[in-house]
Amino acid sequence: MESLIAEKLSIVTRIYLDHASTSWPKAAGVIDAMTEFMRDCGANSSRGNYASARQAATIRERVRGRLAELIGAEGRQCVSFHSGCTAALNAAIHGLMPATAGSQHHVIASSAEHNSVLRPLRQATRRSGTELEIIRCEKDGSLDADTIVGAINARTRMVALTDASNVTGIRYPVAEVGRRIALINASRSSADSILLLCDAAQTFGSLPINVASMGAHVLAAPAHKGSGGPLGIAMLYLHPSLHERIEPTIQGGSGHDGLADRMPASMPGRLEPGSMNIAALAGWDAALDRQPTAPETWHALTTRLHNRLSEIDGVHIVGGQGVLPIASIEFGAMLSCAEAAAILDAEFGIEVRSGYHCAAELHDCLGTRESGTLRISCGPSTTLDEIDRLADALAEIVES
Amino acid sequence: MESLIAEKLSIVTRIYLDHASTSWPKAAGVIDAMTEFMRDCGANSSRGNYASARQAATIRERVRGRLAELIGAEGRQCVSFHSGCTAALNAAIHGLMPATAGSQHHVIASSAEHNSVLRPLRQATRRSGTELEIIRCEKDGSLDADTIVGAINARTRMVALTDASNVTGIRYPVAEVGRRIALINASRSSADSILLLCDAAQTFGSLPINVASMGAHVLAAPAHKGSGGPLGIAMLYLHPSLHERIEPTIQGGSGHDGLADRMPASMPGRLEPGSMNIAALAGWDAALDRQPTAPETWHALTTRLHNRLSEIDGVHIVGGQGVLPIASIEFGAMLSCAEAAAILDAEFGIEVRSGYHCAAELHDCLGTRESGTLRISCGPSTTLDEIDRLADALAEIVES
Repeated sequence: MESLIAEKLSIVTRIYLDHASTSWPKAAGVIDAMTEFMRDCGANSSRGNYASARQAATIRERVRGRLAELIGAEGRQCVSFHSGCTAALNAAIHGLMPATAGSQHHVIASSAEHNSVLRPLRQATRRSGTELEIIRCEKDGSLDADTIVGAINARTRMVALTDASNVTGIRYPVAEVGRRIALINASRSSADSILLLCDAAQTFGSLPINVASMGAHVLAAPAHKGSGGPLGIAMLYLHPSLHERIEPTIQGGSGHDGLADRMPASMPGRLEPGSMNIAALAGWDAALDRQPTAPETWHALTTRLHNRLSEIDGVHIVGGQGVLPIASIEFGAMLSCAEAAAILDAEFGIEVRSGYHCAAELHDCLGTRESGTLRISCGPSTTLDEIDRLADALAEIVES
Repeated sequence: MESLIAEKLSIVTRIYLDHASTSWPKAAGVIDAMTEFMRDCGANSSRGNYASARQAATIRERVRGRLAELIGAEGRQCVSFHSGCTAALNAAIHGLMPATAGSQHHVIASSAEHNSVLRPLRQATRRSGTELEIIRCEKDGSLDADTIVGAINARTRMVALTDASNVTGIRYPVAEVGRRIALINASRSSADSILLLCDAAQTFGSLPINVASMGAHVLAAPAHKGSGGPLGIAMLYLHPSLHERIEPTIQGGSGHDGLADRMPASMPGRLEPGSMNIAALAGWDAALDRQPTAPETWHALTTRLHNRLSEIDGVHIVGGQGVLPIASIEFGAMLSCAEAAAILDAEFGIEVRSGYHCAAELHDCLGTRESGTLRISCGPSTTLDEIDRLADALAEIVES
């Protein structure tokens, strides 16, 4: 397999523009840190009182502490580890919903949410009989705070708003919505307060995230996207007020309180059953050493991408320009997005993704429910030259 | 951190005897395969129509096919991937329980079950009002098929029986129980049939596993234990009759059917939301190339371990000798298991685990609810000489 991969990659220089799906190449040091952990330590964390096991636990707690500090959490116990952002979001949505909203209540989600938010929300609200209201974005994929806050009523108990769209790269006004939810909550009892849940899958590691200034009560992000870390690990931030409210939806060995018939009461262990993926955490630890990409760099990439694409006859940019270097395009009836992606890969060595990008509702707003889009998403290693080569290739494909 | 690990390990030769917790060192080729995937491919599987993404999907499907064949599954769609054995068991127990058992029904579990079975079973039966009956093992940790089958009544809908204990290494009569459940099911409607759920965390990769000859309807196993693979990936086998019955307990992006408001209907994608850990699958793929350890080797290790331990005054072996090279011991009032583990590590470079080993109920049977045990668990790389060195060290500790 590896020789096949190497052979394929030797044919053309690889231009990877699917960073919104996963990062490649990984941040410097990630693979080495994982290798060294697996080779030199390899023990299960908190599963034995010997030095290697304690070293594994030390890695876990160091990353937890770094992440808590990075996002402005109230303490490291606010950060639990999950196997991916989907698992983290499910732990939060299914774990909080029973105590948060019932058949008399109302939950709001933006239509920009990923299926990892929409699908568990649909399942959890269906089960509890809670009303789920999905707020449509504008035709360009944007959504303002007034529209979201305007949908809040006395029965509302949760608002799910992603930090940025994985289809357009547009960032949403989470902090503004958070401020206004805090004002509403100030006149409510804590049992009736509104939770703000933020999926930061696209932004964490690329843009600064601060849960306090965002007013987010729940925030999830994986290691493998903007952080440049490995697959297999993600974080869930939970505001301290939720630590006793959340019910573990997955139960198993906890490394302590082993004789108890349920998960331990204390966070974050309450949400962390089973063997923790310390190899992945060692990789994330290394990824967190990377210098953040400057906002000007993201802006330059985003602007070049949108400018170059907008110049190509036959290419239609779907949605507005956001803060992340992402663009979704379609070609009209003559060329499908899947065909274009296949040609870009086979002829030009350019890797992009076609389809719906797991954003079920957004395509109604963008008018792409039939076609889907071809999504180009850049990362910290992307160069302006690579964007130019993508644009040249697209122009050639469309002309032919 | 890595330099600290290296420094610590250089002091004494490391004797790792905590294989029941996780394997170390990893099987040959595992770390290289993961490194090569992350370095040379790194794409998300089924998330784009370009060659790297298809190569990632190829790895996933190759491992799925290999595992399906290895365990005698009816087809590769019977094997779904999860982030760990705990996640796999939770997906099965919480996903099947609503359609399997309600307030009129009865579920059986052995007291040898790990918390990754007991805790989700307790939670799921509590929620549905199902009676959960835990069948006590004998004082030596054994449990015969008659006792389990004798507990089955007309209301019984599920039997959970682990393939082997992680505390004693004793294997349970899953195949015999499976045969007798099949006989009972032959006179029941499919809706009333009894499911046999088998946690094969300790045996898969060490002993042959065949779901057909075991009569298991559900079986879960991780990559990181007997297989010698990495953390972060595990398999769940589901009998074809359950594919339409299981409800996904975690929902998210599915890579296809992106516009649907719920998970796809078809297995295994139905249970696999989010980005799949292909790096870990590449590692498991390499681990599966390892030649299985011969039963005679396991027997020689197990016998030497139990014989040597039984010769030491002041060491009490807890439970009988099983087929896996595991032994649990305790020392009486003069020495705690935690102290002994700490001394073994610090003075002799021997890594073993003390405590309850996430087996909440078994300690009542073994008489170790107060003390827990010191567990020694060998792997394919363990030598008879290492067992002798452990025994010598224990003798020295007990004498001093």
